[in-house]
Amino acid sequence: MATSQSLSNGDDHESSSLFCESWRFSVEANNAGNWSAVPDRCLEFVKDYMTGDRYKSDFGLTAKNTLEFAKSVDIAEDGKDAWIFDVDETLISFLPYYESHGFGKTDQKEFVKWGLRNKLPALQASLSLYKEIHQLGFKIFLLTGRPEWFRNFTTTNLAEAGYSDWERLILRQPSDENKKAIDYKPEKRKQLLDEGYRIIGNVGDQWSDLMGYPIAQRSFKYPNLMYYVA
Amino acid sequence: MATSQSLSNGDDHESSSLFCESWRFSVEANNAGNWSAVPDRCLEFVKDYMTGDRYKSDFGLTAKNTLEFAKSVDIAEDGKDAWIFDVDETLISFLPYYESHGFGKTDQKEFVKWGLRNKLPALQASLSLYKEIHQLGFKIFLLTGRPEWFRNFTTTNLAEAGYSDWERLILRQPSDENKKAIDYKPEKRKQLLDEGYRIIGNVGDQWSDLMGYPIAQRSFKYPNLMYYVA
Repeated sequence: MATSQSLSNGDDHESSSLFCESWRFSVEANNAGNWSAVPDRCLEFVKDYMTGDRYKSDFGLTAKNTLEFAKSVDIAEDGKDAWIFDVDETLISFLPYYESHGFGKTDQKEFVKWGLRNKLPALQASLSLYKEIHQLGFKIFLLTGRPEWFRNFTTTNLAEAGYSDWERLILRQPSDENKKAIDYKPEKRKQLLDEGYRIIGNVGDQWSDLMGYPIAQRSFKYPNLMYYVA
Repeated sequence: MATSQSLSNGDDHESSSLFCESWRFSVEANNAGNWSAVPDRCLEFVKDYMTGDRYKSDFGLTAKNTLEFAKSVDIAEDGKDAWIFDVDETLISFLPYYESHGFGKTDQKEFVKWGLRNKLPALQASLSLYKEIHQLGFKIFLLTGRPEWFRNFTTTNLAEAGYSDWERLILRQPSDENKKAIDYKPEKRKQLLDEGYRIIGNVGDQWSDLMGYPIAQRSFKYPNLMYYVA
């Protein structure tokens, strides 16, 4: 058995499974920081995680946590209680891309081209959650890093996946082009705040969806072992 | 196989192991919010996790992530680059308490009494990390929710566990008594900021160690499936 000392160095791990479980913890708790690709020794682990029961289970329990909080909120009658959803890997899923291209380092151009050619399926637990949150009376804002020229395409994809009744779909404007997500997303939340909205809940698969000022009353981190957005 | 729909309800999980893995994700990503006890069906899972290889492995890789960031920092010569460590479950460990009392709901009085009677052992990966961070030139601040009257006892325990050379040990003052950790800890970080320190890194096992303004340049969430501090 490895000692605590040797375990302070990831390379010493005796088993890839133990290492990959720890890598997953590091990624999901944002300890790993800006990681660029799944470690080679974890490619099979990530494939099993994403395509087996575990991703669905983690995603589903997070949706349950989210709904429990949403139901606990005393919604005001002024229509200013806002709920934010990210889009990719939160409402709709690139998993089919990874299933056909592998879970290793992604060719960014190929990835975007594929995204423009294919309709992304809904994440079912999110679709149910989304409908319930709308039903509760929150104003829903979709805040995505996709550029403005993806608007029609994104709206159509979301509608075909079953989403409707959002208050606003916020996309990157030309002036946001070179901003990191961790700067761009809080700026857009700040604009909602300035319009008088209270940001009650925020749902995303990236820490850059959730961190930075202003922060939502509660933020929910959905699983994503496929990529990191800084 | 359960469908995505049924998995949106944790109670429907077919296997406790799958559920407990998801519960762990929810806890570590702070989606579960203020949880009061390990779910009964996960008591064995938590015991195996904490006393087997997994806790050490997760802890060790997080320490590695932390050190990698610390080494990347260009430390100024003004002595104002600060690094914060929490104490319990970050530097020293209550694991022996849980091993002898079980991982279920804790009797808070008994827990504190035990903590006063027993020396808590160092978490070895933290001890190595702590020494390296000190060596790099950071000023180390220990920020704990323990009350001021624990000062001597805590100092002795930390010294016996191998820790030394901290700049300041910050404990709850009488005026902090009724504050939640999520309010108390940012207030103390704000005081460091007001003294001219730059809060570069922050290490803790609770989200309430890490969240709130001012936030460190990088925060590192260490694993803890034993308890939650709001």
